[in-house]
Amino acid sequence: MDKPRDHCGLFGVYNHPDAARLTYFGLHALQHRGQESAGIVTSVYDEAKGRKVMPVLKDFGLVLDVFDNKDEFDDTLVGDAAIGHTRYSTSGSATNPANIQPFVVHDREGHFALAHNGNLSNARAIRDQLVEKGTLFNSSSDTELILHLAAQSREAGPVARMVDALHQCQGAFSLVILTDDALIAARDPNGFRPLALGKLPPADGREHPAWVVASETCAFDIVGAEYVRDIEPGEILVIDREGIQRVGTGGDFNGVCMPRKDGVSQCVFEYVYFSRPDSKIFGATVDKVRRKMGKRLAHDAPVPHIEKGDGKRPIVMSVPDSSNTAAIGYVSESNKMGHRCKLDIGLIRNHYVGRTFISPGQSTREQRVRTKFNPIRGVLEGRVVVMVDDSIVRGTTARQLVKMVREAGAAEVHFRSASPPVRWPCFYGMDFPSREELAANKHGAVDAIAEWLGVDSLGYLSVEGMLDAVEEAHESRDRYCHACFSGTYPVPVETGVVKEENDW
Amino acid sequence: MDKPRDHCGLFGVYNHPDAARLTYFGLHALQHRGQESAGIVTSVYDEAKGRKVMPVLKDFGLVLDVFDNKDEFDDTLVGDAAIGHTRYSTSGSATNPANIQPFVVHDREGHFALAHNGNLSNARAIRDQLVEKGTLFNSSSDTELILHLAAQSREAGPVARMVDALHQCQGAFSLVILTDDALIAARDPNGFRPLALGKLPPADGREHPAWVVASETCAFDIVGAEYVRDIEPGEILVIDREGIQRVGTGGDFNGVCMPRKDGVSQCVFEYVYFSRPDSKIFGATVDKVRRKMGKRLAHDAPVPHIEKGDGKRPIVMSVPDSSNTAAIGYVSESNKMGHRCKLDIGLIRNHYVGRTFISPGQSTREQRVRTKFNPIRGVLEGRVVVMVDDSIVRGTTARQLVKMVREAGAAEVHFRSASPPVRWPCFYGMDFPSREELAANKHGAVDAIAEWLGVDSLGYLSVEGMLDAVEEAHESRDRYCHACFSGTYPVPVETGVVKEENDW
Amino acid sequence: MDKPRDHCGLFGVYNHPDAARLTYFGLHALQHRGQESAGIVTSVYDEAKGRKVMPVLKDFGLVLDVFDNKDEFDDTLVGDAAIGHTRYSTSGSATNPANIQPFVVHDREGHFALAHNGNLSNARAIRDQLVEKGTLFNSSSDTELILHLAAQSREAGPVARMVDALHQCQGAFSLVILTDDALIAARDPNGFRPLALGKLPPADGREHPAWVVASETCAFDIVGAEYVRDIEPGEILVIDREGIQRVGTGGDFNGVCMPRKDGVSQCVFEYVYFSRPDSKIFGATVDKVRRKMGKRLAHDAPVPHIEKGDGKRPIVMSVPDSSNTAAIGYVSESNKMGHRCKLDIGLIRNHYVGRTFISPGQSTREQRVRTKFNPIRGVLEGRVVVMVDDSIVRGTTARQLVKMVREAGAAEVHFRSASPPVRWPCFYGMDFPSREELAANKHGAVDAIAEWLGVDSLGYLSVEGMLDAVEEAHESRDRYCHACFSGTYPVPVETGVVKEENDW
Amino acid sequence: MDKPRDHCGLFGVYNHPDAARLTYFGLHALQHRGQESAGIVTSVYDEAKGRKVMPVLKDFGLVLDVFDNKDEFDDTLVGDAAIGHTRYSTSGSATNPANIQPFVVHDREGHFALAHNGNLSNARAIRDQLVEKGTLFNSSSDTELILHLAAQSREAGPVARMVDALHQCQGAFSLVILTDDALIAARDPNGFRPLALGKLPPADGREHPAWVVASETCAFDIVGAEYVRDIEPGEILVIDREGIQRVGTGGDFNGVCMPRKDGVSQCVFEYVYFSRPDSKIFGATVDKVRRKMGKRLAHDAPVPHIEKGDGKRPIVMSVPDSSNTAAIGYVSESNKMGHRCKLDIGLIRNHYVGRTFISPGQSTREQRVRTKFNPIRGVLEGRVVVMVDDSIVRGTTARQLVKMVREAGAAEVHFRSASPPVRWPCFYGMDFPSREELAANKHGAVDAIAEWLGVDSLGYLSVEGMLDAVEEAHESRDRYCHACFSGTYPVPVETGVVKEENDW
Repeated sequence: MDKPRDHCGLFGVYNHPDAARLTYFGLHALQHRGQESAGIVTSVYDEAKGRKVMPVLKDFGLVLDVFDNKDEFDDTLVGDAAIGHTRYSTSGSATNPANIQPFVVHDREGHFALAHNGNLSNARAIRDQLVEKGTLFNSSSDTELILHLAAQSREAGPVARMVDALHQCQGAFSLVILTDDALIAARDPNGFRPLALGKLPPADGREHPAWVVASETCAFDIVGAEYVRDIEPGEILVIDREGIQRVGTGGDFNGVCMPRKDGVSQCVFEYVYFSRPDSKIFGATVDKVRRKMGKRLAHDAPVPHIEKGDGKRPIVMSVPDSSNTAAIGYVSESNKMGHRCKLDIGLIRNHYVGRTFISPGQSTREQRVRTKFNPIRGVLEGRVVVMVDDSIVRGTTARQLVKMVREAGAAEVHFRSASPPVRWPCFYGMDFPSREELAANKHGAVDAIAEWLGVDSLGYLSVEGMLDAVEEAHESRDRYCHACFSGTYPVPVETGVVKEENDW
Repeated sequence: MDKPRDHCGLFGVYNHPDAARLTYFGLHALQHRGQESAGIVTSVYDEAKGRKVMPVLKDFGLVLDVFDNKDEFDDTLVGDAAIGHTRYSTSGSATNPANIQPFVVHDREGHFALAHNGNLSNARAIRDQLVEKGTLFNSSSDTELILHLAAQSREAGPVARMVDALHQCQGAFSLVILTDDALIAARDPNGFRPLALGKLPPADGREHPAWVVASETCAFDIVGAEYVRDIEPGEILVIDREGIQRVGTGGDFNGVCMPRKDGVSQCVFEYVYFSRPDSKIFGATVDKVRRKMGKRLAHDAPVPHIEKGDGKRPIVMSVPDSSNTAAIGYVSESNKMGHRCKLDIGLIRNHYVGRTFISPGQSTREQRVRTKFNPIRGVLEGRVVVMVDDSIVRGTTARQLVKMVREAGAAEVHFRSASPPVRWPCFYGMDFPSREELAANKHGAVDAIAEWLGVDSLGYLSVEGMLDAVEEAHESRDRYCHACFSGTYPVPVETGVVKEENDW
Repeated sequence: MDKPRDHCGLFGVYNHPDAARLTYFGLHALQHRGQESAGIVTSVYDEAKGRKVMPVLKDFGLVLDVFDNKDEFDDTLVGDAAIGHTRYSTSGSATNPANIQPFVVHDREGHFALAHNGNLSNARAIRDQLVEKGTLFNSSSDTELILHLAAQSREAGPVARMVDALHQCQGAFSLVILTDDALIAARDPNGFRPLALGKLPPADGREHPAWVVASETCAFDIVGAEYVRDIEPGEILVIDREGIQRVGTGGDFNGVCMPRKDGVSQCVFEYVYFSRPDSKIFGATVDKVRRKMGKRLAHDAPVPHIEKGDGKRPIVMSVPDSSNTAAIGYVSESNKMGHRCKLDIGLIRNHYVGRTFISPGQSTREQRVRTKFNPIRGVLEGRVVVMVDDSIVRGTTARQLVKMVREAGAAEVHFRSASPPVRWPCFYGMDFPSREELAANKHGAVDAIAEWLGVDSLGYLSVEGMLDAVEEAHESRDRYCHACFSGTYPVPVETGVVKEENDW
Repeated sequence: MDKPRDHCGLFGVYNHPDAARLTYFGLHALQHRGQESAGIVTSVYDEAKGRKVMPVLKDFGLVLDVFDNKDEFDDTLVGDAAIGHTRYSTSGSATNPANIQPFVVHDREGHFALAHNGNLSNARAIRDQLVEKGTLFNSSSDTELILHLAAQSREAGPVARMVDALHQCQGAFSLVILTDDALIAARDPNGFRPLALGKLPPADGREHPAWVVASETCAFDIVGAEYVRDIEPGEILVIDREGIQRVGTGGDFNGVCMPRKDGVSQCVFEYVYFSRPDSKIFGATVDKVRRKMGKRLAHDAPVPHIEKGDGKRPIVMSVPDSSNTAAIGYVSESNKMGHRCKLDIGLIRNHYVGRTFISPGQSTREQRVRTKFNPIRGVLEGRVVVMVDDSIVRGTTARQLVKMVREAGAAEVHFRSASPPVRWPCFYGMDFPSREELAANKHGAVDAIAEWLGVDSLGYLSVEGMLDAVEEAHESRDRYCHACFSGTYPVPVETGVVKEENDW
């Protein structure tokens, strides 16, 4: 409900006769990463023109709304290579169709299509420099800057120019790029946002396999592709007729393509909330990491001692569906620790109510939450209830749910967040509410937040606990960004930049 | 996926200034009972015409698609009384807009609007009789018959004529009817389909409460109404300015309004699958009954002995979301019985993929299931897995899911159905596939079905077990219809009637 | 602009493999007879059902809006027989989709589809009688009454029942009806509204010709059909496998099928304004009759003597396009009479501005007229101008045009109406404004109307002159209804009936 | 039907509170200049952003389709200045939404919105130069080049940069440009395409008048504006708070702003066909010039001697509506010359059939023409008919009409074109078919064309006669471009440029 918003899901295919169809299915699997708009671009040889063209179909709406006509896949989105993009809704504010990705442009050598997940931290500097040269902008997006940099590069050939452009970018950028001859996949040196490489067996009558790239591996599963590895932080991968190769401008660059001056700092929030539990992200299954976080939470914020109620074990319930796995880990570890509790389903979620829901009349946010969730009295009545959520951002939905759980007869309501308090803005691609709106900033200490939420107790996973969990499940805590929890920013940020700055 | 389809969800309000808005929210909560179309009718005095009129808005689509313009609630759907309807999709076949409910007609005395859940078992006889009189039909629906019967009745006044009509109907009919002056709620004498009565405090400045009726009580929760009681089998309830009263044509009728010659036989499948777990249905919380069924299933079809795998406890997973509760009951009881097992989430469901999903190109049913579900390898790999589903109807989705769970590395896959094999057609309002398509008929004995499903073992809840569970959770097994499982039909059925018979 | 509105255009085909396509083109040609809605129904054998079905496509909008998908003609509107309908817009008032024709219903013996042009003068009596029997109504239209009468008839067979129904109807009704086996074309005994019979050569591989019926023969021209003759007043023509035959219930009926008790009284306004000049109506080419009216107008309301201006011949201009022909006749005859004048184009009409035009902001009727017409200063400046229009109904557009012509520099503006003053309501199918809104009633004598219009002189064709013109061009004046001009109603009218009476 | 296509109609307003509404009406009047797409941009101060913004609404479709929601004018298209654009349909070919005008971009100093009518003759050179600098292109339009030139200019301030850009352009460009502070109207030095200046009285409470610019003065009439004068060839007019002033980069430039090195060469085809007869174009009323052309045609290609038929005077008929005026001139002059003939209406045009017309099934071009035109047999039968059309381009519609006129019984059919044979491509803004498709090239000599058309005689207006007519009606022939008729191109053209060259 009031979670931070990522900016997109990416998908790309090279060397498959059904490139656009695979992209369509891939975008379905990535729909949770962005529901505002969707788009697919393909590359195909146009007999009449004697050169490649890039058909595009993109619009506001869910993937199934934008692509509601099968014929488009036969008539328009033809070709062996394609990229696709889904983008998150920015609530309420007037939206500009020019910002719908992928972007497609052409210059002297052909086309570029580009899909981007992230935020450049030196966008203002790049923009100033481009503006100085008389560059015109169609969108208000960082993404367009990359295209101008590539177009104005003095390097030879589209790929070299794009590589040149990427070397000028700082911040967070996972990119899938289509040129007339190649598919390029790139991740910024810090590797803030995920990007994975997959493979499909050669299509009928072809010699080479089809390559796919996607923000999450759940998009590989849906098309039957095999996960190969992640695009590495700082890596620029070019897939063309010659095969698949890492490119750089020379030098070693720590074995990758763009210098890693600030280390690797992958977004830990992808584990906490964004990614689907069935995806591999940064090389680890999300479900596994999230479960570990739930287990750590059992230590950092244990199940309460039973003080009132019917003396039965406390019920632990998740806020469906994003915290289901964490709740399972929490219950499992708690029982191991001797804190007897029982997992149950206390809230039913109505999945038919999407973002297009209208609230006729005087209906409030409360009505909106009631439309989405309903408590089960039979489960909750007279019980001590521990609600496990993945995180507390604004906290308003949590507060409403607590109220509803109490109305359903819960004797006590305890709240557990399977991540630390969110306190700081993200400059690397997540769209949190303003600092003032974050519950942890607005209401202060944990006790005050608990009081505002209306709970009997409130507990958070600690930053240390979270990083322990990541480390235990997968790899060193040093490879993660946790700025939204800790305020420690791995890459310097242009001060005073606001989101709408370039929203002309 | 391939579950039987109920025909609708009903909602009605009397004496509330926001009648249509409440109905809109109520229909949202009932969306799971029908996704093909939605409609709302209100009753309001038209100054210009000097009499009541019945504005209507209905169309194909989800509730949020049909009602996507707030202004309609201010400009069109005004008035103090309203009824609403959602209707299930009949896959593929050409659909007739004339069948979208509620129906609105007028005759000499005013308007009738009617929303119906169920199927008349004497529809053919009624139709023949009406046809004989030269009656014209606009729809292919049973529901229209009721309106003609009322219109042609010789009784005095709209309510009496409708009561007269209802006495001529046999089979399954839960009805919400609006006349220019009253809201009528009725349930057939057997009480096949549910219908509940609720109450809201008097609106601002009013003396009397607002009354609401709905197929399930989850629709009361969303509008903040209090559940009062069920409409009783055979009861006709009239709500008007005089208040709320039960009407009949005289006599006792076992304390209700229509004679109960075949006893009460409420649909047990409402507990198995249809209703939301947070609803009260036939007076019992669905979650509670469904949990009992899961518990009984642990006895009828226990967790398998571990033969291979890693020796760890078997994992019990539900097919989300309809069997979640049964799985919880199954695990809880199994462990009590000493059959150690562990509840986990093995399948992720993509809720963005609704019925409008297109399958471009050569995509198959398999692709469709893959788009909707994805297994979590980390959970399933090397494990003995017990999949709990609410029922097995056609079985094709189950079979595909089994395949996917195996591909994700499960060592063994066992399948448990929290209801008996579905073998017989329903003539009381559910839209099962044809007999030949039902897995239990198509593949024969349990072993044969297991082989077709590709599972290591298959177990069903027994009919006795199911009825024990209902009795344990709520009330006598004698009050339920289980014809689809047992072939025992409580009300005689016109032989040879096929669904499309009247689909002109 | 503010002309009376006819209720529709009719088209029907029997025995042609492209029945719906021919109907589509025919409706295009008849678009001027109704722009509110359009519909096509076909009859085709359904293999699966083992009987005929009647696919229908109808909606609000122009023909090209409603039928904007070629595939519908291949996939849905298949079959050898079809009927179509276009219906006029009723300005502003809330419109009911249930009123869109053709109507399709079914009863015990099969389907009826019906398209109607006209108004029953005994509608109230029929409705009362049907209501008494408990008949339900879906629309507020007279047309539905005919269907109920047929359905409730005791005659044997669909055709006989429809014939029985038609014998009970009085007033104006040109009808095209489709049953599962036949196409029926009928005209009321007075022959108020037109209906013509045409023929196409046998389609490939067929033995018999294809028969077509249409409101105007311009619909035959567009499909390459040959005009055979009019459906005669009182005739009921049945076209089926047996061929084409006139049917009745017995007796002579003056050689037709329904008794002609009130004589023949065809609508003279069809010549004045409604029909396209390229059509044959009631057996005469509209252009020819309209031209004669223009010639007679030259006698009844001659070109003025030149009093001021530049001494040049007066300019005669039409209000495009409906009065073009009358203006030509007027000029031709005036010059023969020695009243020297010159035909010219003084107003340009913008055909892009249709009925969906929005008027943002404070825009007035004046703006609307300005958007549709623009005077040519170079033609009008300093000249004595005679504006010829086909009729004056409300007069508001005429008044605005006069003002614009004056602003363009005309020295004098004279107005000539090629029909008499419209003073009386029509009960036979035309939708005039209320009596009070008619210029001839609102402003009184010709001088007063002239003053209100702002013209130097105003002249009308006399009723006698109009009938002379018809007689001279075609046939006896006794065969025409001129009630709107003369107040002489050929068929008695139910008093006090208002248009919205049945608009439930 | 198969006429050349101009690329657009332009409209602009400065200093009027209803700027967008006036533009909407203006675009309606200019709809004949382009039916593919329409757009309006306004300039308004955004309080929240503390600077000007440029709301835009544009889409494919007619003006009344694109602007079908009144609220847009209150909520979105607010502000005191606006520009609008209509653009012609390019038949069949896939259309790119990025090409819909007006274009809106922003650079370091603010916004530019631009609407363009014409074609740059040095587009390739400009594009090469921009591409060299790494400029990215979003559209395939010449128009975008102007914006990049302005953005990359080194001059100070938006107006100076746009002036700098215009000095680099060659060919045909009438432009209406909006900056955050000014409205700029410009015409290329040759003045190929029209552009006029008009004035409205000061709006309520304002001191200064509102200024309007439009492609044709008929757009002034619709909003009640007064025609002031044309924008002169080579003139750049800036309208801002300071008033209205001509700007240049210095020097005299023949009294205008851009050097007129190739003389003035206004498009004579605007008189022949494009412009509405009620407009003033290049200072002359189109009707007047077109009438003179008709008169000259009477000398160049006289009415034929009557050889067969009924001995009556030949009938002269126009192909409605574009040749109506020429036909009037032709008849008037012919009779003066003693060639007795009579103007009549022989073809009825169906104005409901627009460009969205579908042709289900095997329907051909012939069907399409039949749907649009219908001959009147009563007028044509047995007569010698002279069809006057404004021009013959591809000739296919003319040929079909000749066939239809013959079928309607004409004894002889003679064809007269009120302009010379079209033989050459236009590089200055008109979209003729390819050279090979032009009837005059495809079929050769006049006799051969006549035979192909199926006419008894064919006559064209001579180039000399056309220029005499222009001169007689208005001004020196030296001020006109007639390259499409004569092959004499006033401005050098880049050879080998094809229209789709930049259609990436």
